[in-house]
Amino acid sequence: MGEFELIERLFRPLAEDTWREGVQLGPGDDCAIQRVPEGHDLVFSVDTLVEGIHFPTAYDPARLGWRALAVAVSDLAAMGADPVCYTLAMTLPEADESWARGLVSGLAEASRSFGVALAGGDITRGPLTLTLQVHGTVPRDQAIRRSGARPGDLVAVSGPLGGAAAALPWLDQVHPPASAAPSLICYHRPRPRCDLGHGLRGLASAAIDISDGLVADLGHILKASGVGARLELDRIPLAPAPEGTDTRAMRAHALYGGDDYELCVTLSPSALTGLSKDIAGTLTVIGTITAVTEYRLLHPDGSEEAVRGAGGYDHFGAGQGSL
Amino acid sequence: MGEFELIERLFRPLAEDTWREGVQLGPGDDCAIQRVPEGHDLVFSVDTLVEGIHFPTAYDPARLGWRALAVAVSDLAAMGADPVCYTLAMTLPEADESWARGLVSGLAEASRSFGVALAGGDITRGPLTLTLQVHGTVPRDQAIRRSGARPGDLVAVSGPLGGAAAALPWLDQVHPPASAAPSLICYHRPRPRCDLGHGLRGLASAAIDISDGLVADLGHILKASGVGARLELDRIPLAPAPEGTDTRAMRAHALYGGDDYELCVTLSPSALTGLSKDIAGTLTVIGTITAVTEYRLLHPDGSEEAVRGAGGYDHFGAGQGSL
Repeated sequence: MGEFELIERLFRPLAEDTWREGVQLGPGDDCAIQRVPEGHDLVFSVDTLVEGIHFPTAYDPARLGWRALAVAVSDLAAMGADPVCYTLAMTLPEADESWARGLVSGLAEASRSFGVALAGGDITRGPLTLTLQVHGTVPRDQAIRRSGARPGDLVAVSGPLGGAAAALPWLDQVHPPASAAPSLICYHRPRPRCDLGHGLRGLASAAIDISDGLVADLGHILKASGVGARLELDRIPLAPAPEGTDTRAMRAHALYGGDDYELCVTLSPSALTGLSKDIAGTLTVIGTITAVTEYRLLHPDGSEEAVRGAGGYDHFGAGQGSL
Repeated sequence: MGEFELIERLFRPLAEDTWREGVQLGPGDDCAIQRVPEGHDLVFSVDTLVEGIHFPTAYDPARLGWRALAVAVSDLAAMGADPVCYTLAMTLPEADESWARGLVSGLAEASRSFGVALAGGDITRGPLTLTLQVHGTVPRDQAIRRSGARPGDLVAVSGPLGGAAAALPWLDQVHPPASAAPSLICYHRPRPRCDLGHGLRGLASAAIDISDGLVADLGHILKASGVGARLELDRIPLAPAPEGTDTRAMRAHALYGGDDYELCVTLSPSALTGLSKDIAGTLTVIGTITAVTEYRLLHPDGSEEAVRGAGGYDHFGAGQGSL
């Protein structure tokens, strides 16, 4: 048995243990087969994670497994889609069995938690990268797109922001301070907001998951919708700050830091009042959508700041883009 | 505008120029959306191509674009599925505009030829790898799987084999001999057999595309179906040989070389006689499926060779596997 065949076998339980209705044929043939329920559409997204860029070098493989799948499923949540399955294409520098077992354990925990089964994949020798494509379904024409925000809509987020970015200084530390624990959980264990996305179908006018920081991601909605926004910075819920990080720094993490995987949504005031108590309780209104295509941040001291360009923050300088 | 944003823009026409019915939403949102026609299933496959392993270092980008998409779509052909769209996740060492334009031109030509649109993707800085996931559709329960071969079925292939492997010595040469031209076309311009796969729905009992060599790939069918086979080597159609390559070497290329992307199918004798003239004309019968789970090659000199293990050739030693 070849060394990579052994690795491959370790991944097979991800298909078998988390079998999911709709997956007619999983790994092992030329293709996998998925049955999309009648009256529904397929919703899918692909992301590549490169070691040293999207996760730290020598990152714990079980954490990587959870994080990789959570980040991918978060894109489904942002469309209001229900997760079904995923494919995993990996390049690995070596057939390291113990490392692979760690990755499988993290993927397995996340698979069960989010209700997705492994449907297919590919393992090749190469520098460590993971490419996950997630598949979900949504009733026809009910996917929440980025392009639906309208003047007068409210801007809301689904939870405290900035935690993952605040964790960055402690990621490599063996003994981080206790006060960094909540931030580290934000980074290592993001939770895609699938239930919320599901509940916002037909109610939210636009949605996006916050992966690049609130300013950049809301910027994508503004650009796609052809509108502007005013954000009230003192209304943005902030994650607990580690010792030595003040509110101003936490706010900067929330605005520009990324990796939060909360949802940023727009919805009309009447849609907000029509939400169930459960869903309304998870949303915090932080601003409004304007017809004027200006993107303005209102600081707590009363000053205003214009975000450069209606598209917001340019995240491509970081060496990545998405099609 | 960031350097990778420029690269990203070069790829956008792949979505716009080859718009495909069924793709409700292409690149630019958190997810893409595909509508699978009623009564049909989604069929999908993911493959990663790493520079220096799956294609030569410094390979012409336009050839890479064609080859990458052709190889991916070939998996759909093997299931009898009709191609619809694909995603492309790339890691690129640098934002090289001229290289990217070449890749886009090759992808565009292949997209139009195979009828697939770019539905989404991801571009990241890293060592050169391409991960393509192709999506097709097939009427419910009509996908051709590897597991349906039955004793008494015939084994057939869709065209001459060995050409791509015969090209390997010439890939890096600026002036290869004229006699190597047919082999080089096999390597650079594989053509997925989508029409044939489509025509074999409900008729072939099993199918696979020949990517790892006939012996390995038929071995996958035998293993999945729990059967054996006898191959008559002198019946295997061989691609034109370059100067200095004899029939014996070409036969070895056909058996073990790979990269041919013809189909290997099994079907009952009555199914074969029921085929339309067009389809029957593209198939060459080269052996039979046996109840005894032995995998035997009958050499032209009358000698017999047993292939090690019913699963055939172990291709995992090459440092890759598929889930």
